[in-house]
Amino acid sequence: MEEKEISRAVIKRLPRYYRYLGELLDNGVERISSNELSDRMQVTASQIRQDLNNFGGFGQQGYGYNVKYLYNEIGKILGLDKTYNVIIVGAGNLGQALANYVKFEKRGFRVIGMFDVNENLVGKRVRGIEIKMLDDLKPFLEENEIHIATLTLPKQAAEEVAVRLVEGGVKAIWNFAHTDLNLPEDVIVENVHLSESLMQLSYNITRHQQGKNGK
Amino acid sequence: MEEKEISRAVIKRLPRYYRYLGELLDNGVERISSNELSDRMQVTASQIRQDLNNFGGFGQQGYGYNVKYLYNEIGKILGLDKTYNVIIVGAGNLGQALANYVKFEKRGFRVIGMFDVNENLVGKRVRGIEIKMLDDLKPFLEENEIHIATLTLPKQAAEEVAVRLVEGGVKAIWNFAHTDLNLPEDVIVENVHLSESLMQLSYNITRHQQGKNGK
Repeated sequence: MEEKEISRAVIKRLPRYYRYLGELLDNGVERISSNELSDRMQVTASQIRQDLNNFGGFGQQGYGYNVKYLYNEIGKILGLDKTYNVIIVGAGNLGQALANYVKFEKRGFRVIGMFDVNENLVGKRVRGIEIKMLDDLKPFLEENEIHIATLTLPKQAAEEVAVRLVEGGVKAIWNFAHTDLNLPEDVIVENVHLSESLMQLSYNITRHQQGKNGK
Repeated sequence: MEEKEISRAVIKRLPRYYRYLGELLDNGVERISSNELSDRMQVTASQIRQDLNNFGGFGQQGYGYNVKYLYNEIGKILGLDKTYNVIIVGAGNLGQALANYVKFEKRGFRVIGMFDVNENLVGKRVRGIEIKMLDDLKPFLEENEIHIATLTLPKQAAEEVAVRLVEGGVKAIWNFAHTDLNLPEDVIVENVHLSESLMQLSYNITRHQQGKNGK
Protein backbone atom coordinates (compact mmCIF):
# COMPACT_ATOMS: atom_id res chain seq x y z
CA MET A 1 0.00 0.00 0.00
CA GLU A 2 1.20 3.48 -0.75
CA GLU A 3 2.19 5.52 2.23
CA LYS A 4 0.20 8.70 2.41
CA GLU A 5 -1.11 10.95 5.09
CA ILE A 6 -4.63 10.02 6.16
CA SER A 7 -6.64 12.68 7.94
CA ARG A 8 -7.14 12.39 11.65
CA ALA A 9 -10.91 12.34 11.23
CA VAL A 10 -10.68 9.24 9.03
CA ILE A 11 -8.31 7.53 11.45
CA LYS A 12 -10.79 8.18 14.25
CA ARG A 13 -13.42 6.28 12.28
CA LEU A 14 -11.20 3.31 11.37
CA PRO A 15 -11.65 1.36 14.63
CA ARG A 16 -15.37 1.48 14.07
CA TYR A 17 -15.03 0.13 10.53
CA TYR A 18 -12.73 -2.52 11.91
CA ARG A 19 -15.30 -3.52 14.51
CA TYR A 20 -18.13 -3.79 11.99
CA LEU A 21 -16.02 -5.69 9.48
CA GLY A 22 -14.95 -8.08 12.24
CA GLU A 23 -18.59 -8.75 13.06
CA LEU A 24 -19.33 -9.40 9.38
CA LEU A 25 -16.43 -11.83 9.22
CA ASP A 26 -17.68 -13.62 12.33
CA ASN A 27 -21.02 -13.99 10.57
CA GLY A 28 -19.42 -15.45 7.47
CA VAL A 29 -20.06 -12.42 5.24
CA GLU A 30 -17.46 -12.32 2.44
CA ARG A 31 -18.32 -9.14 0.63
CA ILE A 32 -20.41 -6.08 1.23
CA SER A 33 -21.45 -3.00 -0.70
CA SER A 34 -20.98 0.49 0.65
CA ASN A 35 -24.78 0.75 0.78
CA GLU A 36 -25.15 -2.29 3.01
CA LEU A 37 -22.30 -1.13 5.23
CA SER A 38 -23.99 2.27 5.34
CA ASP A 39 -27.24 0.74 6.65
CA ARG A 40 -25.44 -1.11 9.38
CA MET A 41 -23.11 1.66 10.49
CA GLN A 42 -25.52 4.56 10.03
CA VAL A 43 -22.92 6.46 8.07
CA THR A 44 -23.72 7.60 4.54
CA ALA A 45 -22.53 5.33 1.72
CA SER A 46 -20.71 8.24 0.15
CA GLN A 47 -18.82 8.87 3.40
CA ILE A 48 -17.87 5.21 3.52
CA ARG A 49 -16.60 5.22 -0.09
CA GLN A 50 -14.68 8.40 0.56
CA ASP A 51 -13.11 7.03 3.75
CA LEU A 52 -12.16 3.69 2.26
CA ASN A 53 -10.80 5.26 -0.92
CA ASN A 54 -8.00 6.54 1.26
CA PHE A 55 -6.56 3.07 1.20
CA GLY A 56 -6.68 2.75 -2.55
CA GLY A 57 -9.42 1.00 -4.48
CA PHE A 58 -10.50 -1.76 -2.14
CA GLY A 59 -14.03 -1.62 -3.52
CA GLN A 60 -14.97 -2.97 -6.92
CA GLN A 61 -17.92 -1.83 -8.97
CA GLY A 62 -20.71 -4.39 -8.84
CA TYR A 63 -18.82 -6.53 -6.35
CA GLY A 64 -18.46 -4.34 -3.30
CA TYR A 65 -15.77 -4.69 -0.71
CA ASN A 66 -13.95 -7.89 0.10
CA VAL A 67 -14.62 -8.00 3.84
CA LYS A 68 -11.61 -10.02 4.88
CA TYR A 69 -9.16 -8.03 2.76
CA LEU A 70 -10.53 -4.72 4.02
CA TYR A 71 -10.51 -5.97 7.60
CA ASN A 72 -6.89 -7.02 7.32
CA GLU A 73 -5.78 -3.83 5.60
CA ILE A 74 -7.45 -1.61 8.17
CA GLY A 75 -5.97 -3.82 10.87
CA LYS A 76 -2.50 -3.20 9.44
CA ILE A 77 -3.04 0.55 9.31
CA LEU A 78 -4.13 0.45 12.95
CA GLY A 79 -1.04 -1.55 13.86
CA LEU A 80 -3.07 -4.62 14.82
CA ASP A 81 -0.85 -6.99 12.84
CA LYS A 82 1.74 -6.72 15.61
CA THR A 83 1.95 -7.85 19.20
CA TYR A 84 2.32 -5.37 22.04
CA ASN A 85 3.63 -6.08 25.50
CA VAL A 86 1.48 -4.20 27.96
CA ILE A 87 1.82 -3.49 31.66
CA ILE A 88 -0.90 -2.15 33.92
CA VAL A 89 0.15 0.21 36.68
CA GLY A 90 -2.62 0.43 39.23
CA ALA A 91 -4.17 -2.98 39.91
CA GLY A 92 -7.47 -1.83 41.41
CA ASN A 93 -10.85 -2.63 39.90
CA LEU A 94 -10.23 -0.74 36.70
CA GLY A 95 -6.76 -2.21 36.18
CA GLN A 96 -8.12 -5.69 36.84
CA ALA A 97 -11.04 -5.10 34.48
CA LEU A 98 -8.61 -4.23 31.70
CA ALA A 99 -6.39 -7.22 32.48
CA ASN A 100 -9.44 -9.47 32.30
CA TYR A 101 -10.58 -8.16 28.97
CA VAL A 102 -9.80 -11.16 26.78
CA LYS A 103 -10.48 -9.37 23.53
CA PHE A 104 -7.51 -7.06 23.94
CA GLU A 105 -5.23 -10.08 23.96
CA LYS A 106 -6.85 -11.43 20.81
CA ARG A 107 -6.03 -8.14 19.13
CA GLY A 108 -2.38 -8.49 20.09
CA PHE A 109 -2.23 -6.54 23.34
CA ARG A 110 -0.64 -8.94 25.83
CA VAL A 111 -0.64 -7.90 29.47
CA ILE A 112 2.61 -9.22 30.91
CA GLY A 113 2.83 -7.29 34.17
CA MET A 114 0.70 -5.56 36.78
CA PHE A 115 1.91 -3.22 39.48
CA ASP A 116 0.44 -1.50 42.51
CA VAL A 117 1.46 0.16 45.74
CA ASN A 118 -1.18 -1.67 47.79
CA GLU A 119 0.64 -4.42 49.69
CA ASN A 120 -2.58 -6.40 50.08
CA LEU A 121 -2.55 -7.04 46.36
CA VAL A 122 1.01 -8.41 46.17
CA GLY A 123 1.14 -11.91 44.79
CA LYS A 124 -2.51 -11.87 43.75
CA ARG A 125 -2.98 -13.09 40.20
CA VAL A 126 -5.29 -11.74 37.53
CA ARG A 127 -5.61 -14.09 34.56
CA GLY A 128 -2.32 -15.63 35.61
CA ILE A 129 -0.51 -12.30 35.87
CA GLU A 130 1.05 -11.72 39.25
CA ILE A 131 0.61 -8.29 40.78
CA LYS A 132 3.98 -6.84 41.78
CA MET A 133 4.96 -3.87 43.89
CA LEU A 134 5.76 -0.60 42.17
CA ASP A 135 9.33 -0.93 43.45
CA ASP A 136 9.76 -3.87 41.09
CA LEU A 137 8.90 -1.71 38.09
CA LYS A 138 12.43 -0.59 37.29
CA PRO A 139 14.04 -4.05 37.10
CA PHE A 140 10.98 -5.32 35.21
CA LEU A 141 11.42 -2.62 32.57
CA GLU A 142 15.09 -3.51 32.28
CA GLU A 143 14.30 -7.15 31.61
CA ASN A 144 11.23 -6.75 29.39
CA GLU A 145 10.44 -4.68 26.37
CA ILE A 146 7.20 -2.87 27.15
CA HIS A 147 5.31 -1.24 24.31
CA ILE A 148 2.39 0.17 26.24
CA ALA A 149 1.92 1.10 29.89
CA THR A 150 -1.62 1.50 31.15
CA LEU A 151 -2.06 3.98 33.99
CA THR A 152 -5.02 3.11 36.17
CA LEU A 153 -4.03 4.89 39.34
CA PRO A 154 -5.04 8.07 41.15
CA LYS A 155 -4.06 11.29 39.43
CA GLN A 156 -1.79 12.34 42.32
CA ALA A 157 0.57 9.45 41.52
CA ALA A 158 0.15 9.38 37.75
CA GLU A 159 2.67 11.97 36.64
CA GLU A 160 5.48 10.63 38.81
CA VAL A 161 4.89 7.05 37.70
CA ALA A 162 4.66 8.17 34.06
CA VAL A 163 8.07 9.81 34.36
CA ARG A 164 9.53 6.58 35.79
CA LEU A 165 7.99 4.61 32.94
CA VAL A 166 9.47 6.92 30.35
CA GLU A 167 12.88 6.74 32.07
CA GLY A 168 12.54 2.98 31.82
CA GLY A 169 12.06 3.20 28.07
CA VAL A 170 8.27 3.13 27.69
CA LYS A 171 7.16 5.12 24.67
CA ALA A 172 3.38 4.81 24.81
CA ILE A 173 0.96 5.37 27.67
CA TRP A 174 -2.74 4.59 27.91
CA ASN A 175 -3.74 7.05 30.59
CA PHE A 176 -6.88 6.60 32.69
CA ALA A 177 -5.74 8.99 35.43
CA HIS A 178 -7.73 12.22 35.46
CA THR A 179 -4.83 14.44 34.63
CA ASP A 180 -2.88 15.54 31.57
CA LEU A 181 0.60 14.09 31.61
CA ASN A 182 3.48 16.37 30.71
CA LEU A 183 5.93 14.05 29.01
CA PRO A 184 8.59 14.34 26.30
CA GLU A 185 7.12 14.85 22.84
CA ASP A 186 8.16 11.46 21.52
CA VAL A 187 6.02 9.69 24.12
CA ILE A 188 2.59 8.78 22.79
CA VAL A 189 -0.26 9.34 25.25
CA GLU A 190 -3.84 8.24 24.72
CA ASN A 191 -6.15 9.59 27.40
CA VAL A 192 -9.37 8.01 28.61
CA HIS A 193 -10.92 10.64 30.85
CA LEU A 194 -14.06 8.94 32.14
CA SER A 195 -15.23 11.93 34.13
CA GLU A 196 -15.15 14.08 30.99
CA SER A 197 -17.29 11.53 29.21
CA LEU A 198 -19.76 11.60 32.08
CA MET A 199 -19.89 15.40 31.89
CA GLN A 200 -20.73 15.23 28.20
CA LEU A 201 -23.62 13.04 29.22
CA SER A 202 -24.89 15.41 31.90
CA TYR A 203 -24.47 18.31 29.47
CA ASN A 204 -26.63 16.52 26.91
CA ILE A 205 -29.24 15.61 29.53
CA THR A 206 -29.42 19.25 30.60
CA ARG A 207 -29.69 20.56 27.04
CA HIS A 208 -32.34 18.01 26.25
CA GLN A 209 -34.46 19.01 29.25
CA GLN A 210 -34.10 22.69 28.43
CA GLY A 211 -35.29 21.88 24.92
CA LYS A 212 -38.35 20.11 26.26
CA ASN A 213 -39.19 22.94 28.64
CA GLY A 214 -39.13 25.33 25.70
CA LYS A 215 -36.30 27.29 27.27
CA MET B 1 -26.79 33.82 31.45
CA GLU B 2 -28.16 34.12 27.97
CA GLU B 3 -29.15 30.93 26.29
CA LYS B 4 -27.32 30.48 23.03
CA GLU B 5 -26.00 27.64 20.99
CA ILE B 6 -22.42 26.78 21.86
CA SER B 7 -20.43 24.79 19.31
CA ARG B 8 -19.82 21.14 19.95
CA ALA B 9 -16.06 21.67 19.83
CA VAL B 10 -16.24 24.17 22.68
CA ILE B 11 -18.47 21.86 24.71
CA LYS B 12 -15.93 19.08 24.27
CA ARG B 13 -13.31 21.30 25.87
CA LEU B 14 -15.44 22.44 28.81
CA PRO B 15 -14.83 19.39 31.04
CA ARG B 16 -11.14 20.04 30.74
CA TYR B 17 -11.55 23.70 31.76
CA TYR B 18 -13.72 22.52 34.60
CA ARG B 19 -11.03 20.09 35.78
CA TYR B 20 -8.28 22.72 35.69
CA LEU B 21 -10.40 25.34 37.40
CA GLY B 22 -11.31 22.81 40.08
CA GLU B 23 -7.62 22.15 40.70
CA LEU B 24 -6.97 25.88 40.95
CA LEU B 25 -9.80 26.21 43.48
CA ASP B 26 -8.39 23.32 45.51
CA ASN B 27 -5.10 25.20 45.58
CA GLY B 28 -6.75 28.40 46.78
CA VAL B 29 -6.27 30.33 43.53
CA GLU B 30 -8.96 33.02 43.25
CA ARG B 31 -8.27 34.53 39.88
CA ILE B 32 -6.26 33.69 36.82
CA SER B 33 -5.40 35.35 33.52
CA SER B 34 -5.95 33.64 30.21
CA ASN B 35 -2.14 33.60 29.81
CA GLU B 36 -1.59 31.69 33.05
CA LEU B 37 -4.41 29.29 32.21
CA SER B 38 -2.83 28.89 28.79
CA ASP B 39 0.51 27.85 30.32
CA ARG B 40 -1.16 25.26 32.51
CA MET B 41 -3.50 23.81 29.94
CA GLN B 42 -1.21 24.05 26.93
CA VAL B 43 -3.93 25.73 24.93
CA THR B 44 -3.29 29.17 23.41
CA ALA B 45 -4.50 32.15 25.44
CA SER B 46 -6.48 33.35 22.45
CA GLN B 47 -8.29 30.02 22.20
CA ILE B 48 -9.12 30.24 25.90
CA ARG B 49 -10.47 33.79 25.58
CA GLN B 50 -12.50 32.78 22.55
CA ASP B 51 -13.93 29.69 24.29
CA LEU B 52 -14.80 31.48 27.50
CA ASN B 53 -16.30 34.46 25.67
CA ASN B 54 -19.09 32.07 24.70
CA PHE B 55 -20.41 32.43 28.21
CA GLY B 56 -20.39 36.17 28.16
CA GLY B 57 -17.65 38.34 29.59
CA PHE B 58 -16.42 36.32 32.53
CA GLY B 59 -12.95 37.77 32.14
CA GLN B 60 -12.07 41.31 33.10
CA GLN B 61 -9.23 43.32 31.64
CA GLY B 62 -6.37 43.52 34.09
CA TYR B 63 -8.08 41.22 36.55
CA GLY B 64 -8.42 37.96 34.72
CA TYR B 65 -11.01 35.33 35.42
CA ASN B 66 -12.68 34.81 38.74
CA VAL B 67 -11.89 31.12 39.20
CA LYS B 68 -14.81 30.21 41.42
CA TYR B 69 -17.36 32.05 39.32
CA LEU B 70 -16.09 30.53 36.09
CA TYR B 71 -15.94 27.07 37.69
CA ASN B 72 -19.55 27.35 38.84
CA GLU B 73 -20.81 28.74 35.54
CA ILE B 74 -19.13 26.01 33.51
CA GLY B 75 -20.45 23.50 36.03
CA LYS B 76 -23.98 24.76 35.40
CA ILE B 77 -23.57 24.53 31.64
CA LEU B 78 -22.36 20.96 32.05
CA GLY B 79 -25.36 20.15 34.23
CA LEU B 80 -23.20 19.57 37.31
CA ASP B 81 -25.41 21.72 39.54
CA LYS B 82 -27.91 18.86 39.64
CA THR B 83 -27.96 15.38 41.13
CA TYR B 84 -28.32 12.30 38.96
CA ASN B 85 -29.52 8.89 40.05
CA VAL B 86 -27.33 6.31 38.34
CA ILE B 87 -27.58 2.56 38.02
CA ILE B 88 -24.84 0.24 36.81
CA VAL B 89 -25.85 -2.76 34.77
CA GLY B 90 -23.01 -5.24 34.70
CA ALA B 91 -21.33 -5.53 38.10
CA GLY B 92 -18.03 -7.04 37.00
CA ASN B 93 -14.68 -5.37 37.54
CA LEU B 94 -15.46 -2.38 35.37
CA GLY B 95 -18.90 -1.81 36.89
CA GLN B 96 -17.42 -2.09 40.36
CA ALA B 97 -14.59 0.28 39.45
CA LEU B 98 -17.13 2.90 38.39
CA ALA B 99 -19.23 2.34 41.53
CA ASN B 100 -16.13 2.83 43.63
CA TYR B 101 -15.13 6.05 41.98
CA VAL B 102 -15.90 8.50 44.78
CA LYS B 103 -15.36 11.58 42.66
CA PHE B 104 -18.40 10.86 40.49
CA GLU B 105 -20.58 11.08 43.58
CA LYS B 106 -19.02 14.38 44.56
CA ARG B 107 -19.99 15.73 41.15
CA GLY B 108 -23.60 14.70 41.71
CA PHE B 109 -23.70 11.26 40.10
CA ARG B 110 -25.13 8.96 42.78
CA VAL B 111 -25.05 5.24 42.10
CA ILE B 112 -28.21 3.84 43.67
CA GLY B 113 -28.40 0.41 42.07
CA MET B 114 -26.22 -2.31 40.55
CA PHE B 115 -27.43 -5.26 38.51
CA ASP B 116 -25.90 -8.39 37.05
CA VAL B 117 -26.87 -11.82 35.75
CA ASN B 118 -24.11 -13.60 37.68
CA GLU B 119 -25.78 -15.26 40.67
CA ASN B 120 -22.50 -15.38 42.56
CA LEU B 121 -22.63 -11.61 42.84
CA VAL B 122 -26.14 -11.38 44.30
CA GLY B 123 -26.20 -9.65 47.65
CA LYS B 124 -22.60 -8.53 47.38
CA ARG B 125 -22.19 -4.86 48.24
CA VAL B 126 -20.02 -2.27 46.56
CA ARG B 127 -19.75 0.92 48.60
CA GLY B 128 -22.94 -0.07 50.33
CA ILE B 129 -24.84 -0.70 47.11
CA GLU B 130 -26.31 -4.17 46.92
CA ILE B 131 -25.93 -6.02 43.63
CA LYS B 132 -29.31 -7.26 42.41
CA MET B 133 -30.30 -9.68 39.69
CA LEU B 134 -31.26 -8.31 36.31
CA ASP B 135 -34.78 -9.66 36.88
CA ASP B 136 -35.18 -7.03 39.59
CA LEU B 137 -34.49 -4.24 37.13
CA LYS B 138 -38.08 -3.64 36.04
CA PRO B 139 -39.57 -3.16 39.53
CA PHE B 140 -36.55 -1.07 40.48
CA LEU B 141 -37.15 1.28 37.57
CA GLU B 142 -40.81 1.56 38.55
CA GLU B 143 -39.90 2.59 42.07
CA ASN B 144 -36.94 4.87 41.36
CA GLU B 145 -36.30 7.69 38.98
CA ILE B 146 -33.11 6.81 37.14
CA HIS B 147 -31.38 9.55 35.17
CA ILE B 148 -28.42 7.57 33.86
CA ALA B 149 -27.87 3.85 33.28
CA THR B 150 -24.31 2.67 32.88
CA LEU B 151 -23.86 -0.39 30.68
CA THR B 152 -20.80 -2.39 31.66
CA LEU B 153 -21.73 -5.75 30.24
CA PRO B 154 -20.77 -7.85 27.21
CA LYS B 155 -21.92 -6.47 23.88
CA GLN B 156 -24.12 -9.52 23.20
CA ALA B 157 -26.40 -8.51 26.07
CA ALA B 158 -26.11 -4.73 25.76
CA GLU B 159 -28.74 -3.95 23.16
CA GLU B 160 -31.44 -6.06 24.80
CA VAL B 161 -30.78 -4.59 28.23
CA ALA B 162 -30.70 -1.08 26.75
CA VAL B 163 -34.16 -1.63 25.28
CA ARG B 164 -35.46 -2.77 28.67
CA LEU B 165 -33.95 0.29 30.30
CA VAL B 166 -35.59 2.60 27.80
CA GLU B 167 -38.92 0.83 28.26
CA GLY B 168 -38.47 1.44 31.97
CA GLY B 169 -38.14 5.17 31.35
CA VAL B 170 -34.35 5.65 31.28
CA LYS B 171 -33.40 8.50 28.96
CA ALA B 172 -29.62 8.50 29.14
CA ILE B 173 -27.12 5.67 28.79
CA TRP B 174 -23.40 5.62 29.47
CA ASN B 175 -22.39 2.73 27.26
CA PHE B 176 -19.17 0.77 27.79
CA ALA B 177 -20.27 -2.23 25.71
CA HIS B 178 -18.38 -2.51 22.43
CA THR B 179 -21.39 -1.99 20.25
CA ASP B 180 -23.47 0.88 18.93
CA LEU B 181 -26.90 0.90 20.49
CA ASN B 182 -29.88 1.47 18.23
CA LEU B 183 -32.30 3.34 20.45
CA PRO B 184 -35.05 5.92 20.00
CA GLU B 185 -33.74 9.36 19.09
CA ASP B 186 -34.70 10.97 22.36
CA VAL B 187 -32.42 8.62 24.31
CA ILE B 188 -29.01 10.13 24.97
CA VAL B 189 -26.12 7.72 24.57
CA GLU B 190 -22.52 8.47 25.48
CA ASN B 191 -20.16 5.72 24.33
CA VAL B 192 -16.85 4.77 25.90
CA HIS B 193 -15.30 2.33 23.47
CA LEU B 194 -12.08 1.31 25.17
CA SER B 195 -10.92 -0.95 22.36
CA GLU B 196 -11.18 1.97 19.92
CA SER B 197 -9.03 4.07 22.20
CA LEU B 198 -6.46 1.27 22.34
CA MET B 199 -6.45 1.09 18.53
CA GLN B 200 -5.74 4.81 18.32
CA LEU B 201 -2.74 4.11 20.50
CA SER B 202 -1.46 1.24 18.36
CA TYR B 203 -2.04 3.36 15.26
CA ASN B 204 0.09 6.15 16.71
CA ILE B 205 2.81 3.71 17.78
CA THR B 206 2.92 2.29 14.27
CA ARG B 207 3.03 5.72 12.59
CA HIS B 208 5.73 6.82 14.97
CA GLN B 209 7.89 3.79 14.20
CA GLN B 210 7.40 4.21 10.47
CA GLY B 211 8.48 7.82 10.87
CA LYS B 212 11.66 6.76 12.64
CA ASN B 213 12.47 4.13 10.03
CA GLY B 214 12.15 6.77 7.34
CA LYS B 215 9.35 4.86 5.66
